[in-house]
This record gives sequence, structure tokens and C-alpha cells, in this order.
Amino acid sequence: MKKVRVFAPATVANVACGYNILGFAINKPGDEVIARLTDEPEVVISKIKGDKGELPKETDKNTAGVAVQAFLNEIKAEKGIELEIHKRMPSGSGLGSSAASAVAAVFAANTLFDDPLNKKQLLPFTIKAEKMACGSSHADNVAPSLLGGLVLIKSYEPLDIIRIPTPELYCTIVHPDIIIRTEDAKRILKPEISLEAMVTQTGNIAGLISGLHQGDYGLISRSLEDVMIEPQRSKLIPCFKQVKKAALDSGALGCSISGSGPSIFALSRTLDIAQKAADAMQAAFSSTDISNDVYISEINNKGPMVIEDEQ
Amino acid sequence: MKKVRVFAPATVANVACGYNILGFAINKPGDEVIARLTDEPEVVISKIKGDKGELPKETDKNTAGVAVQAFLNEIKAEKGIELEIHKRMPSGSGLGSSAASAVAAVFAANTLFDDPLNKKQLLPFTIKAEKMACGSSHADNVAPSLLGGLVLIKSYEPLDIIRIPTPELYCTIVHPDIIIRTEDAKRILKPEISLEAMVTQTGNIAGLISGLHQGDYGLISRSLEDVMIEPQRSKLIPCFKQVKKAALDSGALGCSISGSGPSIFALSRTLDIAQKAADAMQAAFSSTDISNDVYISEINNKGPMVIEDEQ
Repeated sequence: MKKVRVFAPATVANVACGYNILGFAINKPGDEVIARLTDEPEVVISKIKGDKGELPKETDKNTAGVAVQAFLNEIKAEKGIELEIHKRMPSGSGLGSSAASAVAAVFAANTLFDDPLNKKQLLPFTIKAEKMACGSSHADNVAPSLLGGLVLIKSYEPLDIIRIPTPELYCTIVHPDIIIRTEDAKRILKPEISLEAMVTQTGNIAGLISGLHQGDYGLISRSLEDVMIEPQRSKLIPCFKQVKKAALDSGALGCSISGSGPSIFALSRTLDIAQKAADAMQAAFSSTDISNDVYISEINNKGPMVIEDEQ
Repeated sequence: MKKVRVFAPATVANVACGYNILGFAINKPGDEVIARLTDEPEVVISKIKGDKGELPKETDKNTAGVAVQAFLNEIKAEKGIELEIHKRMPSGSGLGSSAASAVAAVFAANTLFDDPLNKKQLLPFTIKAEKMACGSSHADNVAPSLLGGLVLIKSYEPLDIIRIPTPELYCTIVHPDIIIRTEDAKRILKPEISLEAMVTQTGNIAGLISGLHQGDYGLISRSLEDVMIEPQRSKLIPCFKQVKKAALDSGALGCSISGSGPSIFALSRTLDIAQKAADAMQAAFSSTDISNDVYISEINNKGPMVIEDEQ
């Protein structure tokens, strides 16, 4: 195989009460990467489409480049990789855009080298890429994008990743066309939280994990509440309260900020409710002049996927 | 039935990473209450054994009295209850002593009135009793003592209680003969925690709940860590570090403070390991001149139990 085209899914990190420890993958949107084997043992990014010229092509400044370079180093490759990145979602959307590109690229490279490593072994390269992009190691986008499904990052040192089973769940995403820089979303957070909020938050995360294991939609719904991060970050998103109320009034199980925003996600038990929530969430945005995109999708349980290859 | 004798189990609250939200019941120790129907619609505590004269017999100052009085009010009883309380464990041990008496008493009273209420309906009376005794509503001892098993208190307002399944687990308790007053154990806690510790703690509680659902002992073990409360409270317990190390070196899955202490609990996957942990934990205490008691027990899945009745 000389060339492969790979899709990797967007992701919703934090998932209300799981700040920095939970994320899940969705079927739409996602990024695509075309990778080709080359003779020189190096990574070249030949083309980036759909990024409005914003993303760097330098290997060491691009998450896809960093991840693939780390992979090539690990396997002591004697050949190299040329990457074409097709962004299918906006950067800075809170949907794990940089993570999806890194995952697609490293999965494509691994495929071209005949799978010397398994998915879990690829994870550290994508975390390294996120660290380059965000300044800190976090895996709540790359882990679900790579492994699929809903993933708990129990700890980073050592890296401890657990797939949590989910019942049938549909995700509605509304992405308002504003930019929230990850640094700003981090800076706004108070460095400490009260013991009381901590007890509420741990009750919610414990309830959510138990509800997911049991397929108990009532418990999942009662647990999808974030008393810690959402009250602080929602101020950065116009109409957040109205959009959330619209989702919940439509019957969604819960609604919160996707990653560090500005995208807002809702989870629903049926496609029909997810569609109703989408309409209501968009309507709640219509009082502003901010344009928005909507995505409705099941949880993606596969992770990255080869969609085309060429011998 | 005119008289009934009821056992209610001691409990381990907090369970490392579940401060104020988790607790489990154990088979040993526990309290016993003998209750008799009387003609006057009031609660009389006629005798308390095993308390070294420390506990009040006034109905409104004794957790068993408060719980039964609240129960009688709820069912608009035309008869009353006389209580004999047999303390089988020390007060202020961190084993839910006041909770066990309240649970045994209210379960006995409900039995004498032919079970007008179910166990979950009895819970608010025991929480009221705890509030009288400790100054704040908490259910992480009364809920597992009443319902049996390992219990998550997801929230208090509204009260949201979830039984979490557990694989086979054995609990070792070492109770050093010192008193830690609940108020002191509360006062020592900082009112805030760092965001970083919060992420670690939520990762641990999420991992613990998932591990219990899956019966994954490795994950349970990696998750039984408390970075928040234990580092602060363990200073009140002589030799805590050595005792914990002894338990873990014996093969226990985890070891932490039971409730607000001074009892220390360890969880193990076999009775044999629980016994080894008990010996090692006691040995670690032997460098002090503090005497101690040891209990080894499976998790109690039944809650209170009638052990004798008389028509």
C-alpha cells in the first residue's frame, strides 16, 4: 500500500461533569488525511485544505506532523510520510479538531507501515501532538478519537485509559461561529473549587459512570450536570443558557459545553429527540446574529477508519 | 409481635476517593437494638449497654430515639416504642456507630408495626438522626447500613441513592483505641481544593465505579486513592502511613481512612489476603502503645436483620 485516506472522528471532551477525564467520539464531523509513503525518512505536509490558511505546514508545529514524526522515530522507520490534511471542521470549535487530524495522520501512517503498533500504542504520539498545540498533556480528545466510544482517562502518570460502555445515545452539536481560544478558556477558570462543589461534582461523575454501565437513562440525565467548569466558561458563549434550556425542554438527557467551547452538545436517547433538540437549540441562537452549524450523530464506536487505499 | 431484636451493620464511609458520597456495610461489627411495642405513643430508651455510659438516653439526643420518633410521627402511630440499645462497637470509631443504632432501631420499629414503610422510605428518618448527632445531613453511613452493599449518594437535594454492584470483596478494619471527634476531623479540612487535585479525584471515583461494575480488581485497586481528604486527616492517626503500607504490601487492593477515622480499612479480593493484611496492619501499630481491635468481614449485602422476635 502506497497511499491511504483515513477519517478520524471529532470528539466531545469533558462531557459535563468529567473535566479533563472524559470524552466521546461522534460520527460527524471529522477530519480526513491522505498519507503517502516516501523514500526520505521524514514527514512532509504537502497540502492543508479547509483551514482557511490558518494551520502551519511545518511538521513540528502541526499536530498531524508531530504525531507522525513521533511514530516514525518510535518504529525507527527507514521511509517517510507525506501528508495531505483535509479539515472538515473548524479549528477552535471545542470539537477536538487538532486531535482528529493527529489521530487520522498517525493511524494512516501506521496502516502504511502494515500496523506495527496497536491503537493504544499510538496514543502517546497523539498526546505529544496535543501538548505541542495546547501547552499541556491532555487526552480527552485524542483518546476517544483514536479508540472510539466514550473513554475515561483515569490518570496521565501512568497513562490509564478505560472504555466505558454506553447505551444507545445520540449527540447534537451546535457550533456558533465564534472563536474561544483554549488559553482563554483555561485562564478564566479559578484555580480552586470548594469542597461542597467537589462533593456534588464527584456525585455526578460517579452517577454518570454507573448510569452508563447500567444503561440507566434517568441516572445519566440526573448526572450530566457540571457545577464546576460550565458556570465559569458559559459566560464566554452568547445565549448559552437559552440554548441549554432549549435542548433540555426538547427532551435531551443533558446539555453542556463541548471541550472548552464554543460548541454546545446535547445527548439524547433517540434520533428524533436529538433532531428536535437541534432545531430548538438553533432557534435559541437565532436572537443573535451569530451563524452556526449543527451536527447530529450517534456515538462513534470505531475511531479512525480507512476510507480509501491504493496499492 | 411485641418485641424484636435487630442487628444493623457498621459501615465504611468515604471509601478513599468518595468523600461524603460512598459507603459500604460490613458484617462485623454492628449494633443490636431490642424494641418493644408500648401503649403510649412515645419513644422511651430504657437501657443502653456497651457504651461506657457515654450515650444520652433522652430520645431527642440519641440517634436511635430521633429516628424512631420521626418514624412514629410519619405513620401517625397510636402506640409507642421502648428501645434497648446494645452497642457492639465503639463510638467515634469512624465505623458509623450512631448510624447503626439508628438503622437498627427504626428497622425494628417498622417491623413491630408490620412494615408500613420500605427501607428507602425509612432512610430520611435516619438522616435526620445523623443531622442531630453531627450537625449536618449525611447519608454515607445510614444508607449502606440500611440498604446493605456499597451505596452511592449521588445527591442530597433531592435524595438520590444508587446501589453499586461489587465483586467479591473482603474488608479488614483496624480500629486504634483513640478518639477523633467528627467536628475535629471536619475542621482540619481546607475549604477548597485545587483544580488539579479535583481532576485526579474525579478520575479515581470514575475508575472505582467502573471497576466495581466490571469486577475489574486492577482498576478498583488503581482507583482506591484519595488525594484530597486522606492527606489532611491521616495526620490525626498515629502510624497511618506504616499501617497503609503494611496493608498494600500484603496484597490489599487499597487502604484508607474509614469515615472520619481513626479506623483504617483495607479491601482485598480474598479472605486470605484480608487476614494477612490484618496481621500486618496490627504489627505496624505495635510500635505504639495504642491498643487496637481488628475486624475482618465480607461486604454486608443485607442491611439490618431481625435476629430474634417474640409474639
